[in-house]
Amino acid sequence: MTDAIRILGIDPGLRHTGWGVIEQSGSRLSHVAHGVIKINPELSLAARLGGIHREISDLAKSYWPDFAGIEETLVNANPRSALKLGQARGAAMAALHGSGLNVLEFSPRTIKLAVVGTGGADKTQVAFMVARLLPKAGKMSSDASDALACAICTANHASTLKRGAA
Amino acid sequence: MTDAIRILGIDPGLRHTGWGVIEQSGSRLSHVAHGVIKINPELSLAARLGGIHREISDLAKSYWPDFAGIEETLVNANPRSALKLGQARGAAMAALHGSGLNVLEFSPRTIKLAVVGTGGADKTQVAFMVARLLPKAGKMSSDASDALACAICTANHASTLKRGAA
Repeated sequence: MTDAIRILGIDPGLRHTGWGVIEQSGSRLSHVAHGVIKINPELSLAARLGGIHREISDLAKSYWPDFAGIEETLVNANPRSALKLGQARGAAMAALHGSGLNVLEFSPRTIKLAVVGTGGADKTQVAFMVARLLPKAGKMSSDASDALACAICTANHASTLKRGAA
Repeated sequence: MTDAIRILGIDPGLRHTGWGVIEQSGSRLSHVAHGVIKINPELSLAARLGGIHREISDLAKSYWPDFAGIEETLVNANPRSALKLGQARGAAMAALHGSGLNVLEFSPRTIKLAVVGTGGADKTQVAFMVARLLPKAGKMSSDASDALACAICTANHASTLKRGAA
């Protein structure tokens, strides 16, 4: 088990932040846990961002991952949604870094390529392949499967990084 | 001094985050401290956001403000800058909330109106009025004077809130 790498994948959002923890041992992936951080939209913006930060810091404390992976945000969205998502992402990344994790970022295309084999895959295909690669994960929302997809993509890259560092 | 309210104003940015602390006692404002958090742009995005979060949490610990004020971001910027600024703002607001502060948000127009008396004032006028209202502050960068302007605006609103709560 000394070679096992534990990874936390995050799919950030101001209302719903998906998360998933997996473990990679050699070429074997296994599911550890997943969930969705749901923030009451009636709270003040500061309280919502503080909530995302606290919950992600708690996940890092509970699951002691070695690496974290987070999806890069596409900038083709409108400025208002880019700002909202940016704020959620900023709170999430500050929490990951503050928890001492190595944080890797991947484009949606890179994540789809790692999980489905094609960068143009849709959400259903991603969810299908996440369920195949992590059969013990069971049913989940798309926020959680996106986060696990990001964790799988991170696992591919993290194992290379770890070999490089050894 | 029991009626004094201490306020931390923040002007967030991914490279430079201005901050300023003032105290309001009755109608009297006084300068406590100001500065700029400068983040090395060569660090990873996660490290920069983690840095903003940590430095702001440290400011809250050092100056124990009652309220924090932060400028609302205009959404007329392009999506790429909105995303960048959003991330910095998210890390900053998560830190303010995590430090137990009441966080108030103000539009640039409201801040200018509070400090200069007109919502269309430019940066030079804001800096001039900040220097007049807080004569002991001395010379400073526009990041710091914008943060102090935000703190002055917050002071106006915070004293009303505090009277309401008493």
